[in-house]
Amino acid sequence: MSEDLTPTYVETGKAFERDMNYVPDRITAGARRPEHGPVAGELWPVEPGRYRLVAARACPWANRTIIVRELLGLQDVISLGTPGPTHDKNSWTFDLDPDGLDPVLGIPRLKDAYEKRFPGYPRGITVPAIVEESSGLLVTNDFPWITHDFFFEWKEYHRPDAPDLWPAHLREEMEEVMQRIFTEVNNGVYRCGFAGSQETYEAAYERLFAALDWLEERLADRRYLMGEAITEADVRLFTTLVRFDPVYHGHFKCNRNKLSEMPNLWGYARDLFQTPGFGDTVDFEQIKAHYYVVHTDINPSGIVPAGPDLSGWTTPHGRG
Amino acid sequence: MSEDLTPTYVETGKAFERDMNYVPDRITAGARRPEHGPVAGELWPVEPGRYRLVAARACPWANRTIIVRELLGLQDVISLGTPGPTHDKNSWTFDLDPDGLDPVLGIPRLKDAYEKRFPGYPRGITVPAIVEESSGLLVTNDFPWITHDFFFEWKEYHRPDAPDLWPAHLREEMEEVMQRIFTEVNNGVYRCGFAGSQETYEAAYERLFAALDWLEERLADRRYLMGEAITEADVRLFTTLVRFDPVYHGHFKCNRNKLSEMPNLWGYARDLFQTPGFGDTVDFEQIKAHYYVVHTDINPSGIVPAGPDLSGWTTPHGRG
Repeated sequence: MSEDLTPTYVETGKAFERDMNYVPDRITAGARRPEHGPVAGELWPVEPGRYRLVAARACPWANRTIIVRELLGLQDVISLGTPGPTHDKNSWTFDLDPDGLDPVLGIPRLKDAYEKRFPGYPRGITVPAIVEESSGLLVTNDFPWITHDFFFEWKEYHRPDAPDLWPAHLREEMEEVMQRIFTEVNNGVYRCGFAGSQETYEAAYERLFAALDWLEERLADRRYLMGEAITEADVRLFTTLVRFDPVYHGHFKCNRNKLSEMPNLWGYARDLFQTPGFGDTVDFEQIKAHYYVVHTDINPSGIVPAGPDLSGWTTPHGRG
Repeated sequence: MSEDLTPTYVETGKAFERDMNYVPDRITAGARRPEHGPVAGELWPVEPGRYRLVAARACPWANRTIIVRELLGLQDVISLGTPGPTHDKNSWTFDLDPDGLDPVLGIPRLKDAYEKRFPGYPRGITVPAIVEESSGLLVTNDFPWITHDFFFEWKEYHRPDAPDLWPAHLREEMEEVMQRIFTEVNNGVYRCGFAGSQETYEAAYERLFAALDWLEERLADRRYLMGEAITEADVRLFTTLVRFDPVYHGHFKCNRNKLSEMPNLWGYARDLFQTPGFGDTVDFEQIKAHYYVVHTDINPSGIVPAGPDLSGWTTPHGRG
């Protein structure tokens, strides 16, 4: 998914639709055909030290990949480049790095890796992206498959006690849960914020909170979405929840209530936040700066709210 | 104070300053010199049926006058005209009335009463305003003195059990409290929302929440601001508090926390809301429409948030 580069609420009267066309290459063990999912592009071999994950901390879709990389212990085999929270119309940039260059790729803009692979690349320059370190070529930006393949294809390099993020016996139900979370929550907040009319906004708001009510109920008797252990579904929900009160509630008008006003979801989100690999990948300042500065159509002044008070995130969650 | 007609965040780098020049006429018993306050304009005599209060329900400064009129039981002696929540660059308009005309004054725009009195009137057309019904002339728009004079000058016409909104023995402390509420809270939320730079916004945010923390503490052992009875100070604070979660929290970035997250202030605000003369003058739909539609500089889409859930306002406040 990733962040569109020219985010904007759509033409008056229209609803927001996300461009879902990504570079469909996959990185697989031995470059063999993957067990799951489409092969619409090239296959690249799993190889420690060969690839760089480029993932802005601000972006919820990129945040997923940073979390999964940490949960699985892949930090030493896949390096991480982190563009800053804001970007211009052309590209995410490495403006936080010394001299404004990614220290491994040596480029100032992520766009350079896209262009090197596909001169004249016509779509948005999105994160997360994986780039081959030696050639500087973009490999893929197909976000749902990036985390999937971190789990299934990089197994040989997982840390010994890595969690089973895709339990086979739950796979079918988990795919349904993740699909609903994707359309109604992950994308639902954007559908509210980028609505082109009062009518499409209100429809989006109803859909979003119907889904949050469903999750609030689901989490009443489950510690995590799929039961007693963390799965990929939790990662995918978490990155939206952690942005909810700081950004989506005000900036995207997702304001029936704050996350902190939904007891189960708020306890669940804090539980994850306090789990290594989750909260330590979250940079609230970058998150707020990204949305409030980049979306000039929604926030012309570019002023970033000083709130909310975030001290609640580290309070006891009571879900042990 | 009233609403500026062309509200906007100020020039980049500047802080918001409110134009405090109003038509300074006073309406007094027998048109005599008033006990308190300046006489910088003309004096008009108190007379039942002679004047029309023009007060948009959306506007916090106008809302004060509607509340005081009700608390004192002046509904039968001073009539009420209510412009709709939105307005154009020229004027508040009577767009909610049949044929778009105020049913008593017969004018479509409040500006017509201003112009009739002062052709070429150069300042903003603000509410609240008092208009002489027979002539259609603007009398005054000097909002702090309007409620003051409802109490001190219209005493003969108060209902028998009208509250003492200005207890003499508390007057000095009350003026100090009201002054701080005015600069830090009533105007403080606008200072946040119309800030012209990140720096002026953050300074405004700090001032606002410092004042709200002071009030939260003050209300810990007092039912109302001045003790056990409602005064004018409560009216002046209430109209900002009731707009806090629906508007100021998101639209003006006053988002350290919601009002509903400050237990004493939230209980206090609900206590007032449930008191006849307060909550029954509040129209949340008009309030939200006003800010989100009129301030196109802050909210270019004009989309009005569907939230927040307002059902909490009628829950038990526990401050009896």
